[in-house]
Amino acid sequence: MGDYQTLLTDVSGKVATIWLNRPERRNAFSGELNRELNEAFARFDADDGVRAIVVTGAGRYFSAGADLGGGAGTFAGRSGADAPESLPPAERVEPSRMRTPVIAALNGSAVGLGITLPLGWDMRFAAADAKYGFVFTRRGLVPEAGSSWMLPRLVGVSLAMELLLSGRIFSGAEGAAMGLFSRALPADEVLPAAQELARDVAANTSAVSVAATKALVYGGLGQDRAESRAIEQQVFDWMGSQADAAEGVTAFLEKRAPQWPLSKVKDYPPML
Amino acid sequence: MGDYQTLLTDVSGKVATIWLNRPERRNAFSGELNRELNEAFARFDADDGVRAIVVTGAGRYFSAGADLGGGAGTFAGRSGADAPESLPPAERVEPSRMRTPVIAALNGSAVGLGITLPLGWDMRFAAADAKYGFVFTRRGLVPEAGSSWMLPRLVGVSLAMELLLSGRIFSGAEGAAMGLFSRALPADEVLPAAQELARDVAANTSAVSVAATKALVYGGLGQDRAESRAIEQQVFDWMGSQADAAEGVTAFLEKRAPQWPLSKVKDYPPML
Amino acid sequence: MGDYQTLLTDVSGKVATIWLNRPERRNAFSGELNRELNEAFARFDADDGVRAIVVTGAGRYFSAGADLGGGAGTFAGRSGADAPESLPPAERVEPSRMRTPVIAALNGSAVGLGITLPLGWDMRFAAADAKYGFVFTRRGLVPEAGSSWMLPRLVGVSLAMELLLSGRIFSGAEGAAMGLFSRALPADEVLPAAQELARDVAANTSAVSVAATKALVYGGLGQDRAESRAIEQQVFDWMGSQADAAEGVTAFLEKRAPQWPLSKVKDYPPML
Repeated sequence: MGDYQTLLTDVSGKVATIWLNRPERRNAFSGELNRELNEAFARFDADDGVRAIVVTGAGRYFSAGADLGGGAGTFAGRSGADAPESLPPAERVEPSRMRTPVIAALNGSAVGLGITLPLGWDMRFAAADAKYGFVFTRRGLVPEAGSSWMLPRLVGVSLAMELLLSGRIFSGAEGAAMGLFSRALPADEVLPAAQELARDVAANTSAVSVAATKALVYGGLGQDRAESRAIEQQVFDWMGSQADAAEGVTAFLEKRAPQWPLSKVKDYPPML
Repeated sequence: MGDYQTLLTDVSGKVATIWLNRPERRNAFSGELNRELNEAFARFDADDGVRAIVVTGAGRYFSAGADLGGGAGTFAGRSGADAPESLPPAERVEPSRMRTPVIAALNGSAVGLGITLPLGWDMRFAAADAKYGFVFTRRGLVPEAGSSWMLPRLVGVSLAMELLLSGRIFSGAEGAAMGLFSRALPADEVLPAAQELARDVAANTSAVSVAATKALVYGGLGQDRAESRAIEQQVFDWMGSQADAAEGVTAFLEKRAPQWPLSKVKDYPPML
Repeated sequence: MGDYQTLLTDVSGKVATIWLNRPERRNAFSGELNRELNEAFARFDADDGVRAIVVTGAGRYFSAGADLGGGAGTFAGRSGADAPESLPPAERVEPSRMRTPVIAALNGSAVGLGITLPLGWDMRFAAADAKYGFVFTRRGLVPEAGSSWMLPRLVGVSLAMELLLSGRIFSGAEGAAMGLFSRALPADEVLPAAQELARDVAANTSAVSVAATKALVYGGLGQDRAESRAIEQQVFDWMGSQADAAEGVTAFLEKRAPQWPLSKVKDYPPML
């Protein structure tokens, strides 16, 4: 696990933690960081020993976004190759299709790619006093990484439009009030709180249930109600006949911790 | 009205109240409760003497969801037949297609089917200190009753994903802050507040306006903007020429209570 | 600019302010007000000297909505011709397609068309103590101006349904808590705050970035995720190679105010 140049990683108790580790550049995204994060996601998602992934930043910042070291030409031709779209499609991991939940522990400020990428992950904890911003209009750019589609679905069109058009900075506390972040906490409590949620998910939820629920929610955003409900019903009926449902109900009735038989890798619902 | 085994019902002042009445099972859903609730919805929706329906729970709980009396095999093959999908399609009432608004008065805790079914109703009042949860991943299951599609549209994808993946318990107060519940109140004020809103709707709104507005909002969730606006415009123009619009404007100008001529049963907009 | 009968307008510092100016009718919409507002939008949107438009009401109210001076027959056949749909399609300006952001400064109460029209604009500031309402069901009508489609996407289906079905009045403070309004302020601070945001947008954001971001967000509401992301990526790559991106990054690195070379009128992204 120690073979990354721009990441630190740790796995303990079925929870993987990834630190973006370019603190001298405020964890700005380089091509290497982009590739390594993608590879770490792929590796942990294929590992039944990892039930939840937490991503945070080394040092005081989460991420300053794209590395502006290239100056005026940074975004011309995307020579920086710092965004997921620059990766070969066959190697690219789409977080919404991962079977493992990804939790952003936004321990410090994040702008640009540093906040748009976490929009595509599954849950977000923020630092109450840190600064966040979709600053694209202030750099002569537009939103990226799918954020113009996702942000309105995360917090509603009204707040999304204001944040995206103005490019203004907002605090973690404000973001939590909008529903963008699940919680806003003192900076040094963000990572521990995210890891605590991750451990709870790892211990108390079925890996296949979580993977299938992710797929149903993200899939449903592009389906009409009847189509989504038909698929949900199929998955529910399939899951209800598997060993995890028997164990989940039994453990609940016996008031003990569940021991899940199914593997997120091998036992994924065939209709998803 | 007294012919239900698992419900209590009351109609007064054009407001129907339905109590889920299996308090010894924390109002868990049995096949009979499922059938009777469906039948009560059909009956009240066909009755011009009922302008709003309030659903609440007898005793301290709203509903514990599926009845786990079947133990480990409860969800295998859905033998419990406790969910709307188990009813014959021809008899099944889809709440979003009802002409009468349904208000959930969540007087106490609700999990599983006890909270997913109310997501498909129109308005929700909760008890501030009661416990709610989409606990499916903790039982080896996935969300049901359309909740994986609806919850992200009720509270945004960010909060929905966290609640559905973690399966964690949240309070009524927290749910109201998310926008899931219109209000969170002390437990013994939930039903009176829901009935008060129902009486206000019954007295001051046009039955056809309410039925058509429901259809426009739910229909619009699956339409693009131009398509939805074209239908909305047709319905607006049709309604504007009906007797309820004349009465509504006149009563407003005369500062008196309106006397609506139209029937939700007979005078539904023909283009809906 | 002084040639309107029902509007007052002012342009200063690249910010246009429009006052609905029928205070003796609480700024209710007449056919003339409808036409003039449409024309003012078209004029300012075609002017590179205008970077943001603020709409407010003269006097204590924002707008009472449709003018009920026609009495019981007001909505029969829409003889009032007070809504955008009554304008010839070729002349009609669709705010979501404008390249210039429109900010509603809801300085006072607004109901009916007075609140549904601002839902189609881009940002909304409200007066904390003023009264707002989608009162259609209380007049025998249904929502209009696309509000049955837009409101659920602005604040979520749960709150939208309650407001639209009940037609109840809510305060600006409550609307801000729902996310309908970006901020709720004392009434006399609403216009200054909206103009301050407009000046910030005018000074610090790229006009083309703002126009393109608007198009991406509104367009994305009707697209699936992959389709939206492909278009967003094309626009991002195009913008990244334009002079505004070079200036935006350079000005940021030099810690000075940007001087944007591009015109919203002439330099719009060709793929949008």
